[in-house]
Amino acid sequence: MDQSTTTPAGGVDDVTLGRMDAWWRAANYLTVGQIYLLDNPLLREPLAREHVKPRLLGHWGTSPGLSFVYVHLNRAIVARDLDMLYVCGPGHGGPAMVASTYLEGAYSEIYPDISRDAAGLKTLFRQFSFPGGIPSHAAPETPGSIHEGGELGYALSHAFGAAFDNPDLVVACVIGDGEAETGPLAGSWQSIRFLDPVHDGAVLPILHLNGYKIANPTVLGRTSDDDIAAMLRGLGWEPLFVAGDESMAMHRLMAETLDRALDTIAATQAQARAGDAAAAPSRPRWPVIVLRSPKGWTGPKEIDGRKVEGFWRAHQVPITDPRDNPEHLRLLEAWLRSYRPERLFDADGRLLPEIAALAPTGPRRMGASPHAHGGIRGALALPDLRAHAVAVDHPGGTMGEATRVLGAYLRDVIRMNDEARNFRLMGPDETASNRLDAVFEATDRVWQEAIEPYDVHLARQGRVMEVLSEHLCQGWLEGYLLTGRHGFFSCYEAFVHIVDSMFNQHAKWLKVSRTLPWRGRIASLNYLLTSHVWRQDHNGFTHQDPGFIDVVLNKKPEVVRVYFPPDANTLLAVADHALRTWNRVNVIVAGKQPAPQWLDMEAAIRHVAAGIGILDFASNDQGGTPDVVMACAGDVPTLETLAAVSLLRENLPALKIRVVNVVDLMTLQPDTEHPHGLTDRDFDSLFTTDRPVIFAYHGYPYLIHRLAYRRRNHPNIHVRGYKEEGTTTTPFDMVVINDLDRFRLAMDAIDRVPDLAVSAAGVKQMLRDKRTAHRDYVIRHGEDMPEIRDWGWPYGTAAARSGD
Amino acid sequence: MDQSTTTPAGGVDDVTLGRMDAWWRAANYLTVGQIYLLDNPLLREPLAREHVKPRLLGHWGTSPGLSFVYVHLNRAIVARDLDMLYVCGPGHGGPAMVASTYLEGAYSEIYPDISRDAAGLKTLFRQFSFPGGIPSHAAPETPGSIHEGGELGYALSHAFGAAFDNPDLVVACVIGDGEAETGPLAGSWQSIRFLDPVHDGAVLPILHLNGYKIANPTVLGRTSDDDIAAMLRGLGWEPLFVAGDESMAMHRLMAETLDRALDTIAATQAQARAGDAAAAPSRPRWPVIVLRSPKGWTGPKEIDGRKVEGFWRAHQVPITDPRDNPEHLRLLEAWLRSYRPERLFDADGRLLPEIAALAPTGPRRMGASPHAHGGIRGALALPDLRAHAVAVDHPGGTMGEATRVLGAYLRDVIRMNDEARNFRLMGPDETASNRLDAVFEATDRVWQEAIEPYDVHLARQGRVMEVLSEHLCQGWLEGYLLTGRHGFFSCYEAFVHIVDSMFNQHAKWLKVSRTLPWRGRIASLNYLLTSHVWRQDHNGFTHQDPGFIDVVLNKKPEVVRVYFPPDANTLLAVADHALRTWNRVNVIVAGKQPAPQWLDMEAAIRHVAAGIGILDFASNDQGGTPDVVMACAGDVPTLETLAAVSLLRENLPALKIRVVNVVDLMTLQPDTEHPHGLTDRDFDSLFTTDRPVIFAYHGYPYLIHRLAYRRRNHPNIHVRGYKEEGTTTTPFDMVVINDLDRFRLAMDAIDRVPDLAVSAAGVKQMLRDKRTAHRDYVIRHGEDMPEIRDWGWPYGTAAARSGD
Repeated sequence: MDQSTTTPAGGVDDVTLGRMDAWWRAANYLTVGQIYLLDNPLLREPLAREHVKPRLLGHWGTSPGLSFVYVHLNRAIVARDLDMLYVCGPGHGGPAMVASTYLEGAYSEIYPDISRDAAGLKTLFRQFSFPGGIPSHAAPETPGSIHEGGELGYALSHAFGAAFDNPDLVVACVIGDGEAETGPLAGSWQSIRFLDPVHDGAVLPILHLNGYKIANPTVLGRTSDDDIAAMLRGLGWEPLFVAGDESMAMHRLMAETLDRALDTIAATQAQARAGDAAAAPSRPRWPVIVLRSPKGWTGPKEIDGRKVEGFWRAHQVPITDPRDNPEHLRLLEAWLRSYRPERLFDADGRLLPEIAALAPTGPRRMGASPHAHGGIRGALALPDLRAHAVAVDHPGGTMGEATRVLGAYLRDVIRMNDEARNFRLMGPDETASNRLDAVFEATDRVWQEAIEPYDVHLARQGRVMEVLSEHLCQGWLEGYLLTGRHGFFSCYEAFVHIVDSMFNQHAKWLKVSRTLPWRGRIASLNYLLTSHVWRQDHNGFTHQDPGFIDVVLNKKPEVVRVYFPPDANTLLAVADHALRTWNRVNVIVAGKQPAPQWLDMEAAIRHVAAGIGILDFASNDQGGTPDVVMACAGDVPTLETLAAVSLLRENLPALKIRVVNVVDLMTLQPDTEHPHGLTDRDFDSLFTTDRPVIFAYHGYPYLIHRLAYRRRNHPNIHVRGYKEEGTTTTPFDMVVINDLDRFRLAMDAIDRVPDLAVSAAGVKQMLRDKRTAHRDYVIRHGEDMPEIRDWGWPYGTAAARSGD
Repeated sequence: MDQSTTTPAGGVDDVTLGRMDAWWRAANYLTVGQIYLLDNPLLREPLAREHVKPRLLGHWGTSPGLSFVYVHLNRAIVARDLDMLYVCGPGHGGPAMVASTYLEGAYSEIYPDISRDAAGLKTLFRQFSFPGGIPSHAAPETPGSIHEGGELGYALSHAFGAAFDNPDLVVACVIGDGEAETGPLAGSWQSIRFLDPVHDGAVLPILHLNGYKIANPTVLGRTSDDDIAAMLRGLGWEPLFVAGDESMAMHRLMAETLDRALDTIAATQAQARAGDAAAAPSRPRWPVIVLRSPKGWTGPKEIDGRKVEGFWRAHQVPITDPRDNPEHLRLLEAWLRSYRPERLFDADGRLLPEIAALAPTGPRRMGASPHAHGGIRGALALPDLRAHAVAVDHPGGTMGEATRVLGAYLRDVIRMNDEARNFRLMGPDETASNRLDAVFEATDRVWQEAIEPYDVHLARQGRVMEVLSEHLCQGWLEGYLLTGRHGFFSCYEAFVHIVDSMFNQHAKWLKVSRTLPWRGRIASLNYLLTSHVWRQDHNGFTHQDPGFIDVVLNKKPEVVRVYFPPDANTLLAVADHALRTWNRVNVIVAGKQPAPQWLDMEAAIRHVAAGIGILDFASNDQGGTPDVVMACAGDVPTLETLAAVSLLRENLPALKIRVVNVVDLMTLQPDTEHPHGLTDRDFDSLFTTDRPVIFAYHGYPYLIHRLAYRRRNHPNIHVRGYKEEGTTTTPFDMVVINDLDRFRLAMDAIDRVPDLAVSAAGVKQMLRDKRTAHRDYVIRHGEDMPEIRDWGWPYGTAAARSGD
């Protein structure tokens, strides 16, 4: 440890503070350089027009504050030998994060062409916000980052996700006052209600109030210290204020305040860890630093007589036209020279050693944190699928609740990884409601507030996290995965739309980070969408929306997968597969209600591996060409399809029917579009090239056309799905009012098979009558007809087989 | 005013409190009756198995609290002659809202078959959560509701939206402690920073802490009063606590506390309105009531020895099997009889007159509020479009910034409706950035915190609302529209995904409310998506996502519209149209960058009215059959298409090209699917039945296939669009890396027109070389080639004409 950076009683010595200020000036210089300079990186000659980039893209305003925090964290890391991560909420401040990770050397290790000399500086400047270079935000390309700040709101939940089950980690998290206005951030403060001081690390939020957004003051920027302190205390935190604009005074205050905060964290953890965890007192009050500093701090105070520093005009590029306005070019040069680059870098463009020595070394550098670069922990241990299999003697011969079976599997996942502490199950208060409650045989719900004697499965530590915020569930899980661990997010299907945008951003992160070899693989983000559209008859129209899949499919094919297991054994096989994958988003849609089981475990494993297949037990085309293909994707559509097939086979025994079941939705796309896509030959062999296909689909029917429009038999594919009709009614009435019911599907087949519309007119009328009779019954009795509820698959007693 | 309900000094008299308790018991009785009873509504005979519904669907836990609040608000409305609205955040408590609106008579006025007698009671009970009946949540069907509580998080922002520009309205807003955990709700507390006490009404939040969600305690339920008080004070509010479980003590406390809150509101408004608005002091501290009462209050304390009242087991249906368990049937009967229905209803089943007299009358009843039922204010006054027209002598002959032109139009909308105070423009801090800043010639941004001398266009009142929360913008606007006013939400295209789920819920609300004739029309929700995917070259990949359109198109066709105006005049015509529509969601996608203008105002108006048309000025097929159709939707795709056409016409003058431009995306769907859809005949006449169509589309290309897959010429439609590629680069490089650029489109045409691939191989090579040269130039210079930036349409000097 460098002697000069130890903490004497009463604060940090002035020599160290001076060197820290030099580091900060260097970081600010590099920030301005990245925004403006093509050449002349050390200002060895007067700044000329041709040294300036033709397009000026970047954000200055937040950057000096971010660098200020960085150098102070560095000092503390060295002084205390901390394992620390920096989550940069104001992602606009990308150049600041690049600057500091460059100064500490991590950047050049990852990107050797950005060397630590004048040539490297020139490349560093040029590449920023430049075609073929790096983005203007903190991004996957930024060393040490687990958080892209393009869309605001998730910094704090990401930080907590990183801290869970990382007891020795301190996650510093800068939150801008713009971001603090978002709902998801406002809801994230309650994360400490779920942070276990014994087994989790710490999160140190630094609420950075520079007072302005793009063109407005911020709410918290214009709120008094008293109100902010009350708010944060009320939310359970202990606020520490650092405010001002005079550099050295601010350095002194920040160093002292950071020491206080870290002392409190250390003491809190020591106390909690020394005691009996089970009997731990109620939640500690964790520190939060409130940093008030001017927007665009150290930048131009005024330009053309208009206030810039300490105002929103500093947000982006303060001097917009230095190439065309000589006076502004001089202003830019003066600004750059105000950092005294000649006192920061040596003749070769290297940071002076006494400044460079402030940085931690090796993996202690925040730009080289193994936590941030994925893959520090290994794969999950997974139980034997077959031990959880539902016995299926013959198709439909067993009833089962798919998610309940999955619950027992997940319980064993939790048990097998108990010591590794690398798996969490997130959900908005629905683990039991979604019938995953077997997990509570192995673990509890995390809860740091009071626990009453009558509470059920609440504990200070546990693998299950429940909070009524999809944003928090998603943000926590992302942070957890991005730091090398595993998890599952179980969510109501309709309300997963709440995190559409977070999914988008995570998928974009994955797409980019797959191209960066220095980023280790991270476990896939697994969604279990249960309580889905067809089983929201009790909650009604607002709870019915299968459109998340449509959002997911807009993202890069290599990143996304969507699965529709039709029963419990296929759900097990899908979940088992999903938990073994990396760098993806897996969406699994599966119901929780009792339903007939179709495939035994071996058939289920084969079916999931193929992704799509003929259900032999339901087909009577004997390997020949069928008259009609009845296709289905989703548990309820599969049930209705099979019921329709039984109606057809009973009433039209000569009709040759093939039943195709889709588990992996991606198989429908051409193999040229998606790695799981079927070749045209395989598609044609399943769906034929000219026979009618009645396709019962779980979601909005257009999606199937979107996937299959290039296929030869596409003109004959007739899709039924959710057409945005629903209310509080019975389960079967839900499929009837959306034309996805067995009667409608059977009638569709009759309509589409040539000549059958005439020859089977009587059968069709019988189906129509039954359908009408059912609706009448439902409206009279308020429940489905017994013949619907108790319908059983009438064919086949052999073990279930998928075609594959 | 009924004498018995006046407020004597020191509180409400005991007779009145007793009657209020009777009302509350009646409401609770009706709630339990709705959940359980098919018959025997007044318990005139012993409760028997057959009186109970076969499926029990509903939520008891939150309901008694909601009814408790309702009767207290009623007392205050009468005592103070208040105009009040009840926003019910815990929408699960639908039966409570139905109960109270039934008791006050509003329900039977709207639904005469639900009469105020025993027969009506029976129907009321039966219809709840019953097929063909009403949903289990507060919903469009619920009188007085502007808020569906299916998805939680938006109660408070809806309440504020209703209060804006309604100076005489008090919006009571019950927020459950479950909902309080969501991010959007947590962010909504800051709404008072934007509420003008002079010109806006008041919002009185009632934070209802019953302590539990579905299967967990709530965060705030287990938080101390001290911390909650600090949090709310820090957020700018003044908390008032009401806590307990003894009915009469709670009635007394609630009545006193409500009076204190309403006194504070009245005094605050009087003070603000007496003074000089411009010189008003900083934001007042508004009251908020914190109500702690047991979950499932007055319900069964225990069932089978397990805690129910005051615990999460009371959440839904506490007694689940009364039809099958005789002991539970007796428990249910005892519960129902505990409300003493014989002392509440007369022999005919009518509420006793002294209890009924507690309710306000006519439109003062919250179930009959004209604010809640839309249409209390009329249409917007709109300026003359032509006065804002951009002069376009010949196509491409003028440069313009579309949103800047729209800004001037909106400025005039604001001026013309200045007195009506019925229009607001919402956006997350981007009105100026989106170049709508002409509006600031007519108005300011609303801001109730300190205003500094150097602030720009901040004022206590104004038509523009900016907060860095898409959730708040959307929630405020929904509340504003649902109470009869008008507005526009201007948003970054990528980040509008943040409110996907809110859009879904609003579209569902519109779909249902269109079937309820007693609900007046409400103004359409208008989105302006600017800063769109093709002009986010400076912000990079995270800011590039055109997928909101895909989400929108999953909703009912009669509710949604999507527009892609290609230039300023068409944007004006689209916006003008959107502001005249009702009960819809209009999505308008338009860029803000300088771009060539194509159509003069008359042509633009015709083009927008048709929704799709041939651009005659760009086509050379002279009304005959073209060799290729170049289609486009979106401003950048139109520009690239026209540039491609100029390349083709210059190099292949014999090629017959037709250019089709799509403004109204819905025209592509069949007329059987959407009211704006083209007939097949019209579609075929535009797109031909057999010629290649190169379609340049703004968003994800699959969407065009999804819309057009049934069209005869669909196999020949080749779509280019955003394929999830991007970073910080130049504008033209963005289209190049997504294969939407002019060179690629021209090459596509050569590839698709029979024989041309061979005969025009040289031209294609030239295009490919130019494309490569551009990419090289960009990476070398960091900006687009001048020949790209300065490209101008080379044909036609006559006034621009659309084909229609």
